[in-house]
Amino acid sequence: MQSIPTAEYKERMKKFQQNIGKAGLDAVLVHSNEADFANVRYLTEYWPTFESAGVFVPAKGKPVLIIGPESEAYAQGRSVVQNIAMMVEYRESADPEYPGIPVAHYPDVVKKAMEGRPLKKLGLAGFSIMPLPVYFSLRRELRDVELVKADNTLTNLRSVKSPNEIKCMKKAYEISEKAIDAILSEMKPGMTELQVIGIAQREIYKHGGEYEGHALYCFCGPGTKHAISRPTHNTIKRNEVIQLNIGARVGGYSSSVGLPCSIGKLPARKKKLVEFGLEAHLKTGELMRGGKPAAEVVREYEAFVEKRGFKKYMLYGPCHGIGMMEVERPWIESTSTYTLQENMTFQIDTFFQDKDFGLRWENGVRVAKTGIERLSQKFMKLVEL
Amino acid sequence: MQSIPTAEYKERMKKFQQNIGKAGLDAVLVHSNEADFANVRYLTEYWPTFESAGVFVPAKGKPVLIIGPESEAYAQGRSVVQNIAMMVEYRESADPEYPGIPVAHYPDVVKKAMEGRPLKKLGLAGFSIMPLPVYFSLRRELRDVELVKADNTLTNLRSVKSPNEIKCMKKAYEISEKAIDAILSEMKPGMTELQVIGIAQREIYKHGGEYEGHALYCFCGPGTKHAISRPTHNTIKRNEVIQLNIGARVGGYSSSVGLPCSIGKLPARKKKLVEFGLEAHLKTGELMRGGKPAAEVVREYEAFVEKRGFKKYMLYGPCHGIGMMEVERPWIESTSTYTLQENMTFQIDTFFQDKDFGLRWENGVRVAKTGIERLSQKFMKLVEL
Repeated sequence: MQSIPTAEYKERMKKFQQNIGKAGLDAVLVHSNEADFANVRYLTEYWPTFESAGVFVPAKGKPVLIIGPESEAYAQGRSVVQNIAMMVEYRESADPEYPGIPVAHYPDVVKKAMEGRPLKKLGLAGFSIMPLPVYFSLRRELRDVELVKADNTLTNLRSVKSPNEIKCMKKAYEISEKAIDAILSEMKPGMTELQVIGIAQREIYKHGGEYEGHALYCFCGPGTKHAISRPTHNTIKRNEVIQLNIGARVGGYSSSVGLPCSIGKLPARKKKLVEFGLEAHLKTGELMRGGKPAAEVVREYEAFVEKRGFKKYMLYGPCHGIGMMEVERPWIESTSTYTLQENMTFQIDTFFQDKDFGLRWENGVRVAKTGIERLSQKFMKLVEL
Repeated sequence: MQSIPTAEYKERMKKFQQNIGKAGLDAVLVHSNEADFANVRYLTEYWPTFESAGVFVPAKGKPVLIIGPESEAYAQGRSVVQNIAMMVEYRESADPEYPGIPVAHYPDVVKKAMEGRPLKKLGLAGFSIMPLPVYFSLRRELRDVELVKADNTLTNLRSVKSPNEIKCMKKAYEISEKAIDAILSEMKPGMTELQVIGIAQREIYKHGGEYEGHALYCFCGPGTKHAISRPTHNTIKRNEVIQLNIGARVGGYSSSVGLPCSIGKLPARKKKLVEFGLEAHLKTGELMRGGKPAAEVVREYEAFVEKRGFKKYMLYGPCHGIGMMEVERPWIESTSTYTLQENMTFQIDTFFQDKDFGLRWENGVRVAKTGIERLSQKFMKLVEL
């Protein structure tokens, strides 16, 4: 199965350490948890579960993987970084005390990593998910160290993908399409939304996925209006929009394919918006190419939607970054200040809603010099079963 | 499908507000995220995904659910608390800017919730997963408010289960057992650990589960030594310990059933430890009853293991709390200072390891006055397929 070679992890770490130095920092402390696993896994291949994890990376010196007290054997077997410390700040939220298990503190980690170099300015990456026990221990144990937010030192590296990363993503999209194929051949009126998810889960693992790429969506009826939601025990009905967003994960890389479909014909009003949504979805792809300012894509997309008279149905859009996380930086928003670069990967996420339903077309693309390469394209037509 | 009635959510909130008052606090801010969802869901039924969530609960006044900018329709449809605020502190970790979407700040939430009452002392619950943007905004926007850790105001409520909670848990355990039945009838040498997980996922959703109760385990060979780990593309082999830990979630309540099994006979050395593990697992249940100090269970369990000569194979144990989270407070540890109460629910988690393999028997129990009621018991024998 596709994965990232060890040499590439080492190359990433080297580049990250250069970024840390360039940013005027002595080190960066990276954070990840079970759901938001990407930063730590990008650097080490270690993927926390139950417990959280960190990586302490000096501009010069030896990075240290930080794990909770129960993950030692797992981390030793999995992490590319073999310098490992166990700390209670990274334990499960049930706060076990682990009597008798020796744990490290930040000064121990600093000593291991800095190899005698001074630590005056420490960056924090994964700031938006870094929890209070980590912060308060840093403040208490490293009193004289200045702490600064430093997500950019890492996310800028993650946003442009390597050939190996793109291979993992393509495989993940391929598995997502197979899972949708299975859903379309097995889904019946009366099944619950959750039972439809079960079909996708079975296929994801059968074909080599390591996990769902995101919490999977199957909504039938008014639930299709939700930008974010969870599938329920509501049953699948005929002649109604059924929204599927199905994503597999491969080698740490996520995917998602989204389509509205139906069992039986859709009413004309709904069909019209679904079909325009697809047009807008395809249009977005035509607007993207390397070197183009991201905000320009948004302006042109919104002008297209407005000209066609569908602006009042537009919720947001048109794209967000995709990679290890199904939603990751950068977003393509009207406020974006960067230009699209070759080998950035985006999820074109085209969402329209009316008063009683919504629809979403989603497919992945890689930015190329003169346009895009599609990472998925099997489900870009309206399926009425 | 089993779920918690709205009236019970309202009753919980009332008790929580009483606890907040008794603790000398004016309000508590509760936090949850996609993986660690329990605190917010316990109070509101709202289960965040992609974004995180909070509940601002005054000792007297109206609780406010706090969500990210994309979850409004979802939260309105799902939350028992219909006083809802959207804040960027609870957005996805990809940090979208959401141009044009109006968001609230903590003073707005305080105004809504406190209804003119003063806020001087604010408790924080879900402290170990509360992220820095929440904390720094609180510090900046509510400068004169004292912040204190206040997990106990909520976790003490959560640890003793109601009849409805126990019904959800029993259903979740029943589905876990069905998923294991399917695995035992379909698992073949040469399948990957992840493909085995796919069988379980299919069954969990088919029988009415809403999600996995925890990241599912299937390990074959040396991976069975890991206390925490992830299944891989390694294949299932004959005459080798295969460790399954399979859990469904129903109505917000998690379960897990763990058993070592094999395809073909196990070598005598491994079989001996597996069988002793089962004996120790059954013994733990005999040691538990309402009114007994938790630490005493540990002492007696460890004495039993030592007397039988297996102490060097013991990793930890013997129980942790289970409920909404598959691992939640309280743990049963040698340092525990509480006594077991009727309707506390525990996962008996019996883990032994030798140099080249490990094994884990796991089943759920409810503490009763004179002993325990088992929440699962179908897989308490060694299965050699």
